[in-house]
Amino acid sequence: MQFELQILGSASATPMTGRHPTAQLLAVGEGRYLIDCGEGTQWRLLEHRRRLSSLRVIFISHLHGDHYFGLFGLLGTLHLQGRQEPLLIVGPPGLDLVLTTQAMHSGVQYGFNLTFVPVDTEAHALVYEDALVRVSTLPMRHRVPCCGYLFEEQPRRDRLVKESLPPGLSPAELAQLAQGHDLPANPATGRPALAHAAVSTPAAPPRRYAFCSDTLYTPALAELVRGADLLYHEATFLEELRERAAQTHHSTAAQAAELACAAGVGLLLIGHFSSRYKQLTAHLAEAQAIFPNTELATEGLVVAV
Amino acid sequence: MQFELQILGSASATPMTGRHPTAQLLAVGEGRYLIDCGEGTQWRLLEHRRRLSSLRVIFISHLHGDHYFGLFGLLGTLHLQGRQEPLLIVGPPGLDLVLTTQAMHSGVQYGFNLTFVPVDTEAHALVYEDALVRVSTLPMRHRVPCCGYLFEEQPRRDRLVKESLPPGLSPAELAQLAQGHDLPANPATGRPALAHAAVSTPAAPPRRYAFCSDTLYTPALAELVRGADLLYHEATFLEELRERAAQTHHSTAAQAAELACAAGVGLLLIGHFSSRYKQLTAHLAEAQAIFPNTELATEGLVVAV
Repeated sequence: MQFELQILGSASATPMTGRHPTAQLLAVGEGRYLIDCGEGTQWRLLEHRRRLSSLRVIFISHLHGDHYFGLFGLLGTLHLQGRQEPLLIVGPPGLDLVLTTQAMHSGVQYGFNLTFVPVDTEAHALVYEDALVRVSTLPMRHRVPCCGYLFEEQPRRDRLVKESLPPGLSPAELAQLAQGHDLPANPATGRPALAHAAVSTPAAPPRRYAFCSDTLYTPALAELVRGADLLYHEATFLEELRERAAQTHHSTAAQAAELACAAGVGLLLIGHFSSRYKQLTAHLAEAQAIFPNTELATEGLVVAV
Repeated sequence: MQFELQILGSASATPMTGRHPTAQLLAVGEGRYLIDCGEGTQWRLLEHRRRLSSLRVIFISHLHGDHYFGLFGLLGTLHLQGRQEPLLIVGPPGLDLVLTTQAMHSGVQYGFNLTFVPVDTEAHALVYEDALVRVSTLPMRHRVPCCGYLFEEQPRRDRLVKESLPPGLSPAELAQLAQGHDLPANPATGRPALAHAAVSTPAAPPRRYAFCSDTLYTPALAELVRGADLLYHEATFLEELRERAAQTHHSTAAQAAELACAAGVGLLLIGHFSSRYKQLTAHLAEAQAIFPNTELATEGLVVAV
């Protein structure tokens, strides 16, 4: 099953040409999840030929403009496109009021059901679940209430190994095995008890993606994202501006790498680059010196987990 | 003195790659006036190397998103840039509440004075004036309260013709003439009375730009924009969709041209093109058949009046 992330924006708040504010698209099977929605996100989705109509849920980390100002326009376009499927927005309290005030004065009545799920940005809690993913908040430390999100694939079923199955199993017995249950002995056919584990290959563990939005370097996060296959962590600054990072409640590339190291993740993506850095090679070098398996979350990058 | 318009966006509400929603920059002398501010306008200004800090006033025509969703981000960026000069926003009532609600939840306190001037979109009235321009509303007929704006240069002074001036005029006498006054006879020097008109070339009449935002075709507008040097009029559709234009309170290219013809303007710019039209040659042909001096308001176009 597909588990793929695309970076739609790599910039921090001050705009620059060629970089756009934070937005990411996570594809898990048929599910499409938008993570943050900076100004212009709908054009990024168009450029990358992603159908806006496929979006299922939008997760917003915090109410700084570079993380949600694209939401107004995106919702308007979904309405113009005639969307009827419900849409869920998960984000910090207050976002609903901002959206409602705007929609009221536009004279727009969305043709689809828009549900808002306010989250406690200071908790690590399950906030969304469907047949494909479970999503929990990750508390960030920023200048306004802010959280990241941990996306965890729903557990996959162990695969039955045909060659290990005894002959003559009924459809009901096969179904039980497929669902992970052991079979008791069957006196009618004389078949002995059959352990699920003996006839199946264990499924790969659920894949996990941790999105760590704007935050002061917070070592305690390592515990919450331990072993994630993919970690995105902001790296607004380089170490040379470590103090500035702390003042503005942001992180450096080295700090992002330290967290990746402590958490033992598979791959680290760094992003949310300050516009003062025209080149990003120093960011990559600084992070890779600590955590070699680091990549830059550049515009349009696709990472398949 | 400079009197120059730049088109920053030519699209209507449904986004498409390569076209952006409505925004225009009018430069009159040192004054910089932004007219509408669709999503992404700050990136357009950056691309065209226009300094955001030079903006003096922002005029918004109506509260459909494709005309103002870039305002949130632009204001945030001006704040990040450390702006201290006051900024004026002129637009329909309700915009202030939308902006205030958003700013409150972003935890942002702008470092500059932001003043909002609500306008009566059904009136033709003076709503802004400085040393360079006078701006009046132009009532539009759209699905929500909506107005265009008429920009009129402040009258320029007649220019004195050196060769026509008698010798021996005092600085005070020269100043009086320059300000447009006649001089009475001067018995002390024996100079006869001197008419301002006899020693000056009349200034060119003030240049005028009429911005007609989203509107149902409204022939009565011709009276209000009569003789404008430059008229921008939306042309969302072609005549083949004249009924659709009326239903959605928009205009066709032919209707824009009919208005330009009736008003006897100098140059007509048409824009706000529906995304269904990938090519715009038909728009241009349809309008030029009625009003030959028509141009397409394409992305980045600069028109000096």
